[in-house]
Amino acid sequence: MKKLINDPADVVKDALRGIEAAHSDRLRVDHENRVIYRKDAPVRGKVGLVSGGGSGHEPLHGGFVGVGMLDAACAGEVFTSPVPDQMMAATAAVDGGAGVLHIVKNYTGDVMNFEMAAELAAADSGTEVVSVVTDDDVAVQDSTWTAGRRGVGVTVLLEKIVGAAAEEGRPLGEVADLARKVNGQGRSMGLALTSCTVPAAGKPTFELGESEFELGVGIHGEPGRQRLPLVPAKDLAALLVEPILGDLPYGKGDSVIAFVNGMGGTPLLELYVMYNEVAQLLGKAGVTVARSLVGNYITSLEMAGCSVTLLKVDDELVRLWDAPVNTPGLRWGV
Amino acid sequence: MKKLINDPADVVKDALRGIEAAHSDRLRVDHENRVIYRKDAPVRGKVGLVSGGGSGHEPLHGGFVGVGMLDAACAGEVFTSPVPDQMMAATAAVDGGAGVLHIVKNYTGDVMNFEMAAELAAADSGTEVVSVVTDDDVAVQDSTWTAGRRGVGVTVLLEKIVGAAAEEGRPLGEVADLARKVNGQGRSMGLALTSCTVPAAGKPTFELGESEFELGVGIHGEPGRQRLPLVPAKDLAALLVEPILGDLPYGKGDSVIAFVNGMGGTPLLELYVMYNEVAQLLGKAGVTVARSLVGNYITSLEMAGCSVTLLKVDDELVRLWDAPVNTPGLRWGV
Repeated sequence: MKKLINDPADVVKDALRGIEAAHSDRLRVDHENRVIYRKDAPVRGKVGLVSGGGSGHEPLHGGFVGVGMLDAACAGEVFTSPVPDQMMAATAAVDGGAGVLHIVKNYTGDVMNFEMAAELAAADSGTEVVSVVTDDDVAVQDSTWTAGRRGVGVTVLLEKIVGAAAEEGRPLGEVADLARKVNGQGRSMGLALTSCTVPAAGKPTFELGESEFELGVGIHGEPGRQRLPLVPAKDLAALLVEPILGDLPYGKGDSVIAFVNGMGGTPLLELYVMYNEVAQLLGKAGVTVARSLVGNYITSLEMAGCSVTLLKVDDELVRLWDAPVNTPGLRWGV
Repeated sequence: MKKLINDPADVVKDALRGIEAAHSDRLRVDHENRVIYRKDAPVRGKVGLVSGGGSGHEPLHGGFVGVGMLDAACAGEVFTSPVPDQMMAATAAVDGGAGVLHIVKNYTGDVMNFEMAAELAAADSGTEVVSVVTDDDVAVQDSTWTAGRRGVGVTVLLEKIVGAAAEEGRPLGEVADLARKVNGQGRSMGLALTSCTVPAAGKPTFELGESEFELGVGIHGEPGRQRLPLVPAKDLAALLVEPILGDLPYGKGDSVIAFVNGMGGTPLLELYVMYNEVAQLLGKAGVTVARSLVGNYITSLEMAGCSVTLLKVDDELVRLWDAPVNTPGLRWGV
């Protein structure tokens, strides 16, 4: 294992110190609880947005904390859910009197811990908490750490769009409904060319042959649909886009945000090659691309591979997508 | 070789189509000449900024085209200089009557081709062209494809700062002087944990042992200072920061933009671990960090590793750094 780290046990601790040092203009970090906060949290009268999960998916979630997106992100160990104490601390700290939304990717540990935190926060301080779970991955029904579909790329788009709505001062019920709508209209699927190595494990999570790829891989390297011999980008794009299009389904006349995401170890050059193929497939299906996003936004350490997310949008969702955002990972309009 | 590509010969062509599809709101692409343009180029009365180089370093340079940065970027084959015809086309197309600045990384092919293009552009159309060469890499004096120091990370910072100055309508001489000042005050050094594979070659550019790293690596995998056994991030940071600090030199009371750059295959989590160490070393040296940048901005395909760039800044450089920019790779204020 070759990594730019100190002791493998200190990776998350050290990275949080780096995030704080690099972004102290916008963020603050509670090192004891391992929570990254928007600097001005809690914002009076605004619904507080809390997310979090295992580390190793950066910039998700800590890189999406800031004006127009999250108020707090709880960082677990690499690929390990944060614990309820972290989520309770975050919930209390971002409660500006309008309640708190938990945005939870559908993995058993995350769901269970966020549920417990929501109950305890309500009992402790009377904070009103609503949870929304993302489950946009069409690859498999159940998986290693998930009952039901996994929450993946749509989480990025949801945090942006719902963050904009919260910034407008909308009440908790509306913000939660919007989050459910975004999750309901979003679908994703990914593939891996290589595994990744969790620092504490010291060896690759799984093995792939010299010319194999894993279709439908999870963001922790969980098995997907099948292992296949590698094919050109054009065919890889079809293997991702077709199951997505057929699932919602998306069709002629629909407008989408098209998101080609890198898993962490794939060059941007290749992501643009993939985006070209995805855009052509959408064109053939009569689907209009309203907005696009290409880059590494929900990663799996140094895994090579990519995922495609489509989110069906109306004018309102596009307006919220375009609204100002100021986070380390996504920034525009400010 | 496992990559998300079609025919290895078509990688750049396909990626340019993807860039056009994803960013047609801001950019246009001349596919015959393989030049990416700011959509509204030429801008009347503004100095036109042209850069370019081998592909495989994305987002550099094509991802830095847009308002507040470059007017055009010429894309060569992977790790191969663009040809003078591309640069001539770009120079003519961005000439808004105030002349054109060529921003050239110091590699023999790039320097020679940009020189020829500048001469031909002047002879052909009378366009006034000034070239500024970046050579900020302190690792080695000469290298595989370079006489003198290599141009690396400072190029990103220079394109941003000089782009802001050109946007203000400053004349060519001033813009060029500013570019030279930025290059003169910037220093960089990098390291690699792994090699990368050029698609047309099909095999890794170089080999590193299981626990080795290359100190002072170039952005095409050119040899650096030495191969050493891997050490913790804290020590890696010192091996990069100390030669940089000693070279300008930077010292007590200096203010810098501190830039920790990923080579393409290193997780953001690790880049923040490195940033933490770099920030501590700067603190000990009495150097103040005015602004920071952490992420993959000048890459080497899927190489694992990082580089550190320091740029000594005054209030004016910070103001230009903070000015609005709207490119796929860097965006704020718009």
